[in-house]
Amino acid sequence: MSKLIFEISMSLDGYVAGPDPSDEDPLGVGGEDLHEWAFATRSWRESHGRDGGEEGPESDLLQESIDRAGATIMGRKMFSGGEGTWEDDSHRDGWWGDEPPFHHPVFILTHHEREAQEMEGGTSFNFVTDGIETALEQAREAAGDKDVKIAGGAQAGQQYLGAGLVEEMMIHVAPVLLGGGVRLFDGDLGDVEVEIIRTVESPNATHVGYRIQK
Amino acid sequence: MSKLIFEISMSLDGYVAGPDPSDEDPLGVGGEDLHEWAFATRSWRESHGRDGGEEGPESDLLQESIDRAGATIMGRKMFSGGEGTWEDDSHRDGWWGDEPPFHHPVFILTHHEREAQEMEGGTSFNFVTDGIETALEQAREAAGDKDVKIAGGAQAGQQYLGAGLVEEMMIHVAPVLLGGGVRLFDGDLGDVEVEIIRTVESPNATHVGYRIQK
Repeated sequence: MSKLIFEISMSLDGYVAGPDPSDEDPLGVGGEDLHEWAFATRSWRESHGRDGGEEGPESDLLQESIDRAGATIMGRKMFSGGEGTWEDDSHRDGWWGDEPPFHHPVFILTHHEREAQEMEGGTSFNFVTDGIETALEQAREAAGDKDVKIAGGAQAGQQYLGAGLVEEMMIHVAPVLLGGGVRLFDGDLGDVEVEIIRTVESPNATHVGYRIQK
Repeated sequence: MSKLIFEISMSLDGYVAGPDPSDEDPLGVGGEDLHEWAFATRSWRESHGRDGGEEGPESDLLQESIDRAGATIMGRKMFSGGEGTWEDDSHRDGWWGDEPPFHHPVFILTHHEREAQEMEGGTSFNFVTDGIETALEQAREAAGDKDVKIAGGAQAGQQYLGAGLVEEMMIHVAPVLLGGGVRLFDGDLGDVEVEIIRTVESPNATHVGYRIQK
């Protein structure tokens, strides 16, 4: 049964990106540290075309997430930074290279229309200009029986949470204090109730899965 | 060996108290929910003079924290709410009743001098007006070989963290979104690096112990 899952790495002080993002440092100062736990796993490395990495519960958790996802939704800034008008060549192709690590259709929330783009390795980038519900509809269609994953950023996640559409969250809490940046939770999302459905512990991060109560 | 430990319950969205605190609702709207996991344990109930409660890893964790602590430091608002000038009778005695649950000396950070007060059951309230380092010195003296615990609030914890004095944190992350209130981490504390030293999982909360790197 297909689910909508919001999955993201967060610092202990609640940020999903550090302060002062730039083209060289799109995740802001210290932001890469949020993902150190993932970089160390075999499953992350394999999905990014790299060798090595550690086996274990974290690698298994990530592999399961990779296997379950049939489509990804992301905010426009997560795709490309910059202004997102698609007229700025330096950001037009996003951060993700010729063979992005998704290997399935990705739906990008944007205000500016653009043709879909097929990438190497099974990823397609699809640009949705008429709102989060349309993006979800298209992503569900593409995912079939598999899950749809909201990969971030914070704003995209908040929009889907606030609209009552998210069924599960997987929050990876990294042992990092960023001291500023983009908060995952910033203010009132309305009446969102959660329950813990699983926890995977490690010295690298604390991974907690939540079911959103309806 | 005596350590300084900051221990506190936090919502998934980073708050240690909800919005709109009042005399009736000192932890703000929803703030009590942060502590549901503790209320359910045998060890919490026993330290508060109540029967019942569940045994298990969470109760053991809390019992260990109770056993290790020889003194507690808290911010003035956590003691009594109100204005803290001690001229406001309605707040003068704090929230804690005739037999407070500490059973050891408690040091309260305040701007207004006041005589120490012996309570039933081994708790004393000691009012420290000349800063966090003096309070820590007095608490360490009182604790002997046992640990000193910073019980909150957020501001007291931030002050000790920012000064580089905290050696460990135990954060109890409750599966609750408060949507507003008092943030545990609010801005830049300087260069604080943490590592995970233990994790206790349960459906009620996720308990993560961090060592502060020096």
